[in-house]
Amino acid sequence: MEVAKELLAGNRLALSRAITAIENEYEEATDIMKELYPHTGHAYVLGITGPPGAGKSTLTEKIAKAYREQGKTVGIIAVDPTSPFTGGAILGDRIRMNSLTLDEGVFIRSMGTRGSLGGLSHKTADAVKALDAFGKDIIIVETVGVGQSEVDIVKAADTTIVVLIPGMGDDIQAIKAGILEIGDLFTVNKSDLDGADKLVREINMMLDLDSLMTDWRPPISKVIASQGEGIDLLLADVGKHRQYIEGNGELARRRTKRAKDELLDILGAGIERRIKTHISDRLNGYVEQMKKHETDPYTLVNGILAEMLK
Amino acid sequence: MEVAKELLAGNRLALSRAITAIENEYEEATDIMKELYPHTGHAYVLGITGPPGAGKSTLTEKIAKAYREQGKTVGIIAVDPTSPFTGGAILGDRIRMNSLTLDEGVFIRSMGTRGSLGGLSHKTADAVKALDAFGKDIIIVETVGVGQSEVDIVKAADTTIVVLIPGMGDDIQAIKAGILEIGDLFTVNKSDLDGADKLVREINMMLDLDSLMTDWRPPISKVIASQGEGIDLLLADVGKHRQYIEGNGELARRRTKRAKDELLDILGAGIERRIKTHISDRLNGYVEQMKKHETDPYTLVNGILAEMLK
Repeated sequence: MEVAKELLAGNRLALSRAITAIENEYEEATDIMKELYPHTGHAYVLGITGPPGAGKSTLTEKIAKAYREQGKTVGIIAVDPTSPFTGGAILGDRIRMNSLTLDEGVFIRSMGTRGSLGGLSHKTADAVKALDAFGKDIIIVETVGVGQSEVDIVKAADTTIVVLIPGMGDDIQAIKAGILEIGDLFTVNKSDLDGADKLVREINMMLDLDSLMTDWRPPISKVIASQGEGIDLLLADVGKHRQYIEGNGELARRRTKRAKDELLDILGAGIERRIKTHISDRLNGYVEQMKKHETDPYTLVNGILAEMLK
Repeated sequence: MEVAKELLAGNRLALSRAITAIENEYEEATDIMKELYPHTGHAYVLGITGPPGAGKSTLTEKIAKAYREQGKTVGIIAVDPTSPFTGGAILGDRIRMNSLTLDEGVFIRSMGTRGSLGGLSHKTADAVKALDAFGKDIIIVETVGVGQSEVDIVKAADTTIVVLIPGMGDDIQAIKAGILEIGDLFTVNKSDLDGADKLVREINMMLDLDSLMTDWRPPISKVIASQGEGIDLLLADVGKHRQYIEGNGELARRRTKRAKDELLDILGAGIERRIKTHISDRLNGYVEQMKKHETDPYTLVNGILAEMLK
């Protein structure tokens, strides 16, 4: 396959095409991924998530720059699951990360939910693999972290940073509860605002209550991303976490778990495709029967399964 | 099936048990749904969604009360997709809607993402059907609207109200873009706060830009849910939308689409379950092969599908 070979040879345009194929579920995407798969597993994947308005794009930009200064190449996937109908990719992300776009060592891509078959989390995981096979040292997956789909997206990461800001009001508690479990590190952005210390205390309290706590106590840092303040300390925390999970086998366990989930995901998507093809011409008839209450979907499904499965 | 029969006879405990079976994917859930299915299709389903902190629970409570005053019975499903690990249901919702809990004509239930097989949207749809078969006139599905899964959840609704509040800061634009298409009605809550009129103007501008606009121009109302202000006008808008979609066949189209999605959902879940059972003892071996890069998940999936599907 042309695209995969060119990508592996370091062609940025091929990388871009590969991700487009993944995003739009072009048929060749599977063949591309097959070829790329053996070349993956080298990059370190960083997840950055948090509620809307937490300044994730700015933080991502600053972190990418810091890694560049260490001589590492960086891939960024900015995932926007908020726009399922219009195709997603927020122009804003690209604009805000503008300072990186001239750097050949950085590859930035926004992904939305264009196409409906298969989930965004699966596409994100494949895009991460494309960047990994391309040879990026660090891959950052940035996403708005408030729902199940976003949590699924960050599962592609080896280390996940949860970004919060002071003064988010009422049911931020709910958000925090949801992302507490996925944060390996917490950072309070815009920490010059009132309430930053209070927020740090709140996070600490929640971590105290976490019954699943392992040896790793997620550190809580304070940053002002827009001014680049605190980024070095944050990256030092990332380094510590990496060392921790590499040392105790947790990284290997996470990656095994991920490979398993991935296999099941791909299986699920494959099945969905086959089903839709199989019953496509009968679907409308079934729906009419359901609407007239002549049958129910469960009975229909039993029949179709008996018909389709060996 | 006991539970279904008792539910249809008006037993609240049976209703509660049915939804528990749905939520936890107990085996009897399918049998219950089969029995309930012929008795569905009578309720009108209202979706209420919006970003965290928009005051959705309070608004839901006030809307439910207003319908009760019209003599209608009400079912409420408060969906919390933010907490995939801890089981979800926010205690807060129940507390905030406390004023309704003594009213026999109202049934409130929170749902989280307990259990992992099958999506929350599918479970929500089934819970709506249980309330429908129970005989509720109005069913309100309330959910935090910021991600794909939440959008899927509101698809169970006939009319969807998007709730926003003034001064949500930076990437509220992204949220708005995502939920613009699902809003049949918009309402600005906490409209006594600064910026309420500005927000109304912004929503109007976005609606102006919407190329998919039909004859229905989503009305934008202002409410102060905590004080019950504006609720009557909002419900009048709901009534107008209902009349509109009943009159032009759109309601029938939406419900057809929903039945179709539902059939495919149930089918997908059924096949996935069968296949997972089928490969469960080989799964770890497959993952090991993947990790050693001896094979890739796409090749594995092709093999499994060939083996299982006729």
